[in-house]
Amino acid sequence: MKIKYELIKNYKKARLGKLKTNYGTFDTPMFMPVGTLANVKTLTPEELYDMNSAVILSNTYHLWLRPGEDIVDKAGGLHKFMNYNGPILTDSGGFQVFSLAKKKDISEEGVIFKSHIDGKKLFLTPELSIQIQNKLDSDIAMSFDECIPYPASYEYAKASTERTIRWAKRGKEVHNNPNQSLFGIVQGGEYQDLREYSAKETVKLDFDGYSIGGTSVGEDKVTMYNMIDYAIKYLPTDKPRYLMGVGEPIDLLEGVERGIDMFDCVLPTRLARHGNAFTRNGRINLKNLKYKEDFTPIEDNCDCYTCKNYTKAYIRHLITCDEMLGGRLLSIHNIRFLIKEMEEIRESIKNDTFDEYKEEFIKQYKNSD
Amino acid sequence: MKIKYELIKNYKKARLGKLKTNYGTFDTPMFMPVGTLANVKTLTPEELYDMNSAVILSNTYHLWLRPGEDIVDKAGGLHKFMNYNGPILTDSGGFQVFSLAKKKDISEEGVIFKSHIDGKKLFLTPELSIQIQNKLDSDIAMSFDECIPYPASYEYAKASTERTIRWAKRGKEVHNNPNQSLFGIVQGGEYQDLREYSAKETVKLDFDGYSIGGTSVGEDKVTMYNMIDYAIKYLPTDKPRYLMGVGEPIDLLEGVERGIDMFDCVLPTRLARHGNAFTRNGRINLKNLKYKEDFTPIEDNCDCYTCKNYTKAYIRHLITCDEMLGGRLLSIHNIRFLIKEMEEIRESIKNDTFDEYKEEFIKQYKNSD
Repeated sequence: MKIKYELIKNYKKARLGKLKTNYGTFDTPMFMPVGTLANVKTLTPEELYDMNSAVILSNTYHLWLRPGEDIVDKAGGLHKFMNYNGPILTDSGGFQVFSLAKKKDISEEGVIFKSHIDGKKLFLTPELSIQIQNKLDSDIAMSFDECIPYPASYEYAKASTERTIRWAKRGKEVHNNPNQSLFGIVQGGEYQDLREYSAKETVKLDFDGYSIGGTSVGEDKVTMYNMIDYAIKYLPTDKPRYLMGVGEPIDLLEGVERGIDMFDCVLPTRLARHGNAFTRNGRINLKNLKYKEDFTPIEDNCDCYTCKNYTKAYIRHLITCDEMLGGRLLSIHNIRFLIKEMEEIRESIKNDTFDEYKEEFIKQYKNSD
Repeated sequence: MKIKYELIKNYKKARLGKLKTNYGTFDTPMFMPVGTLANVKTLTPEELYDMNSAVILSNTYHLWLRPGEDIVDKAGGLHKFMNYNGPILTDSGGFQVFSLAKKKDISEEGVIFKSHIDGKKLFLTPELSIQIQNKLDSDIAMSFDECIPYPASYEYAKASTERTIRWAKRGKEVHNNPNQSLFGIVQGGEYQDLREYSAKETVKLDFDGYSIGGTSVGEDKVTMYNMIDYAIKYLPTDKPRYLMGVGEPIDLLEGVERGIDMFDCVLPTRLARHGNAFTRNGRINLKNLKYKEDFTPIEDNCDCYTCKNYTKAYIRHLITCDEMLGGRLLSIHNIRFLIKEMEEIRESIKNDTFDEYKEEFIKQYKNSD
């Protein structure tokens, strides 16, 4: 079965909805933790269920290289391979090709680049990306797109955007997995008319959902918010909208406000491994000396396993000593932080209090130390 | 309250017993997982409880350096600091001083050596080791001993053994924690008469339990078995006997056969981080190419979380990609393997079938690939 999106309610442009998948029905807007190499770093599926996670994301490029899509296929697909009984979305590999590979040769056919592991020459095409994802058997596959450099000339962005639409079409033509949905990706770099063009043309191809793709570098916030605004009005209301690679607590609010339903980001787990934690008052770095004798949890009223059981002083000790449990405990807190934020956002849309919630959140979050 | 040991039954020299502690009563012989820096690497206390772990070991030397015993004391002791609600044994720091420090200056007073972290000069004495352990508030503290080099001259071993007894006495005199038991350590290197002398003199000091200490290097198996035999007959039957730093599956059998009640070793977690797993047929290395498409668990009939949920191919993938979850899953399996072995050993003592169990185990284990 393909996924089904049901719009429950709008609050201005913000959307409360339900995403029906082969692995259960989940509320949107939602945040999706990233499990790059068929695991959310340091964590088990049970820990993710406990945090109320829904869809998780895994990376086609990384799984293509290791262990290879045939191994995952022989295991019975990604769910069985990694033992995750929730929905899985796979990206197309596009972002990794354009961000990890130092040199690449882009043609109409696809992209030639070098493996970030052993420098081996690789050739990824729109068709191959979809074929790999078909074998991975994720619930949602993404079309192969070019993440346009930022800034880029209008001419470059236009040619690339047009090519990405042709790539989306080619990918859709070879897509062959009745249990897997396929999303199109709106590109266009920072240009309003290209975003509009890309949105309209991509929608014509009739995908199961639409993503708003970023650039390969990480544009500034205003540009990112603009890129959403430029495109989202052309997307159908009965399909989910996914903003790729965004996970800053305030960006989630900005995205939801503009009509986004799904987000993913490596930020909560990456920050965790570097000793950082989200709190309602802003990010904190547990390596800071001031936490050495702080025998309180990261957040007093947080319901995560970490905050219910451990103090900042203990986590600081683990992080300082490079003990992996430290990164694991912080990953649990940080992912739960974003998932809980999304739960509260949904509640506020339901209660028509989203604007107040957002204002209050930002006010408190900026009081960071 | 101090610990209490109750001998339930002997099978030849092997002992079935109970260890009563402030955190519950546990069966012996037992294997104790090692939590060097106030955590069993990668694992939570709940995961240890699930494996039926009892006592865990933590390292005085490491905690002295990071976070420092005063922090642990302010946290309310090691149990509260690391959130472990089972008994904790702390070693004396002796082994680390003699194995980690490249240069050391041993005198009657104590040992001057350099920190393995920053090279800072440190001075550890028998009194200080006990005072640190008093503050850590473990359930069982160990006397400070010299781990004699191997091989060592008889003269050196004799002088060191006599000094270790004087150190044990000095430590006992300053020990001041009514909820903490104190064990003496039998030394004597590889020499039979020194082991006998050390056992008798240490017992005279009347400790709550007795450990048989090894050398600082890792002697051969025959020497290790001899060191047990030389000493154990002089130890009282109403106190627990602990063989330090031993955790090979077959060594556990050999130790139990000789009358040992407690074992500890970093082996299961260290092997795990390097991709190795214990199996009844011997150790296997999951990095081996032959496991690439092996979609069976490490052991079909193992009751651990890892074997119930994951395949060798998946764990191999995680280990190959340096994903921490791989080491975590293997740590769970390896610790559970040893704890289960101890459960079966206890059952075989109870049923008078220890000899058969041991023979069968060794026969199967040696069929390793």
